[in-house]
Amino acid sequence: MLKGKQSILFDCAPYVISSGSVVGKKEGEGPLGSLFDLIEEENLFGQDTWEEAESEMQKEACLMALGKAQVEPKEVRYLFGGDLLRQGIATSMGLEELHIPLFGLYGACSTSGEALALASMSVAAGYGEYVLAVTSSHFGSAEKEFRFPLAYANQRPLSSQWTVTGSGAFLVGEEKSHVKVSGVTVGKIVDYGLKDSQNMGACMAPAACDTILQNLKDFGSKPSDYDRIFTGDLGYVGQSILFDLMDKEGVDIKDNHMDCGKIIFEQETQHTNAGGSGCGCAAVTLSAYILPKIQSGEWEKVLFVPTGALMSTVSFNEGQSVPGIAHGIVLEHC
Amino acid sequence: MLKGKQSILFDCAPYVISSGSVVGKKEGEGPLGSLFDLIEEENLFGQDTWEEAESEMQKEACLMALGKAQVEPKEVRYLFGGDLLRQGIATSMGLEELHIPLFGLYGACSTSGEALALASMSVAAGYGEYVLAVTSSHFGSAEKEFRFPLAYANQRPLSSQWTVTGSGAFLVGEEKSHVKVSGVTVGKIVDYGLKDSQNMGACMAPAACDTILQNLKDFGSKPSDYDRIFTGDLGYVGQSILFDLMDKEGVDIKDNHMDCGKIIFEQETQHTNAGGSGCGCAAVTLSAYILPKIQSGEWEKVLFVPTGALMSTVSFNEGQSVPGIAHGIVLEHC
Repeated sequence: MLKGKQSILFDCAPYVISSGSVVGKKEGEGPLGSLFDLIEEENLFGQDTWEEAESEMQKEACLMALGKAQVEPKEVRYLFGGDLLRQGIATSMGLEELHIPLFGLYGACSTSGEALALASMSVAAGYGEYVLAVTSSHFGSAEKEFRFPLAYANQRPLSSQWTVTGSGAFLVGEEKSHVKVSGVTVGKIVDYGLKDSQNMGACMAPAACDTILQNLKDFGSKPSDYDRIFTGDLGYVGQSILFDLMDKEGVDIKDNHMDCGKIIFEQETQHTNAGGSGCGCAAVTLSAYILPKIQSGEWEKVLFVPTGALMSTVSFNEGQSVPGIAHGIVLEHC
Repeated sequence: MLKGKQSILFDCAPYVISSGSVVGKKEGEGPLGSLFDLIEEENLFGQDTWEEAESEMQKEACLMALGKAQVEPKEVRYLFGGDLLRQGIATSMGLEELHIPLFGLYGACSTSGEALALASMSVAAGYGEYVLAVTSSHFGSAEKEFRFPLAYANQRPLSSQWTVTGSGAFLVGEEKSHVKVSGVTVGKIVDYGLKDSQNMGACMAPAACDTILQNLKDFGSKPSDYDRIFTGDLGYVGQSILFDLMDKEGVDIKDNHMDCGKIIFEQETQHTNAGGSGCGCAAVTLSAYILPKIQSGEWEKVLFVPTGALMSTVSFNEGQSVPGIAHGIVLEHC
């Protein structure tokens, strides 16, 4: 079952039974707009603060995933959830009402990979018939958390990314569906010493490279074994660095690589600079765009690699670098 | 293997092979002082900032646990780690050099329970021969993160707790030792609507009550089946509330309950008000005080229940309540 240094190939692979995607107005206006389950026209989602709005999104996404599978919250054994905010308050406040035993996670924008890995590992081990994985991000709460309050109207460098307002939830379980999680590759922290928190693509690309190479090595695969290799939110800058790093290792993924942060917004017209980012970016793209294509069999096998930049305003102010981490999830049509 | 609503009884129970405890000066002067592996006289641990000091502690604690078991970092399959800081930077920066695939966690002061639960679940499922669990807290970084900079010298209400400067790491694995993790009870968020972040014991007591009751129910146990039931850091205020809540349910744990936050400091002389707290409190107490007693057989069976208060300065400023969460770990002599 253990593969190579960092991967697991499940003897009894769990399934992604259903998923839910909830996004804000701007995401709804983007190229994937027609695919999301719920687009809220008002980014406060009926709440008073950005943080409460993000909590509301997480709850909605979970209920959406559960509703599609006709599973009640009380039937869900465990929930793995996380967000970008300090002390994960979007998750704590949002999921309280579901009364599901909770594992709180933090992996920056890689958290959807971390949550899916742990949910899959739990189901494959027989620790629950149904397990939920959920992550979220919100442009308003993330700008406030990491950069400047929105009212300050700061200029955004071209390498900066636009935090996706969205939440994706995934019901993982033993019940057969058309998407199975056949394996996972758990990522290590990779730190090239970059310190520019407005260029997260560059900070995360080395971790994405490390995890993809490790995945190929652990499973004895080549890039073409995957119909697509999806990174979470490297964006335009990060993708080109990833290609350079992979080239140096003699591995070419240009033909089948896609990045959720690149496809979720229309760069020119939506003014999103280097692309989308945030815990929600990879999660809603997986739910709305990637999973349906695996379900239908258009793609037989996909490597999903959400990427995270590990930093806080404190580490940034103290002059620390921004290390990256990425987790790989192998999804197959069945 | 699944027990009741929230618990797992492992078919093939993993072992706590070794552990390491690293603490600051004040903890070293407390009642458990002689038991810790490493006491640093200088709370910066040779670093420039409190955050870097906390990172250093995590690394030291991990290396201590590994050293005792003569296991190299590269032999460790996965690492589950967390701390109290925003975006978990103590963990991200501290564990980078170990190059172990990482799952970042956030469960406030319950994180040592969360990490031990996931590490045990992973080993029991065959996902790794060796898995590490580590958590930390630091008085300086926590005061800065949640309350006031130390230089402000604010008055501390009597219900406030003193964040433990310390890190505890646990090597969980298949290799037989005298302590096995026979089961876990994963906690739900419990929110009584309390909003006083300077009275965390009161905020966490309902969650501790919920998890302990659920553990007893799921495993069909009574309190006396455990030699001790340890909560993480309810402190003096939280413990009395826990007793009241348990009384209402007709369950009396007074005879065998202990709280890590109560025993780590000498309340009167060390001026720690309601007791110790923080991710490190339960972790170093488990490592230095509880595990040796289970190893020796003085205690046959212990329920270890770290408790967390889920809040941030943002949620506090926005008037949100402080929900609690607690995870139960069943430790047995063997």
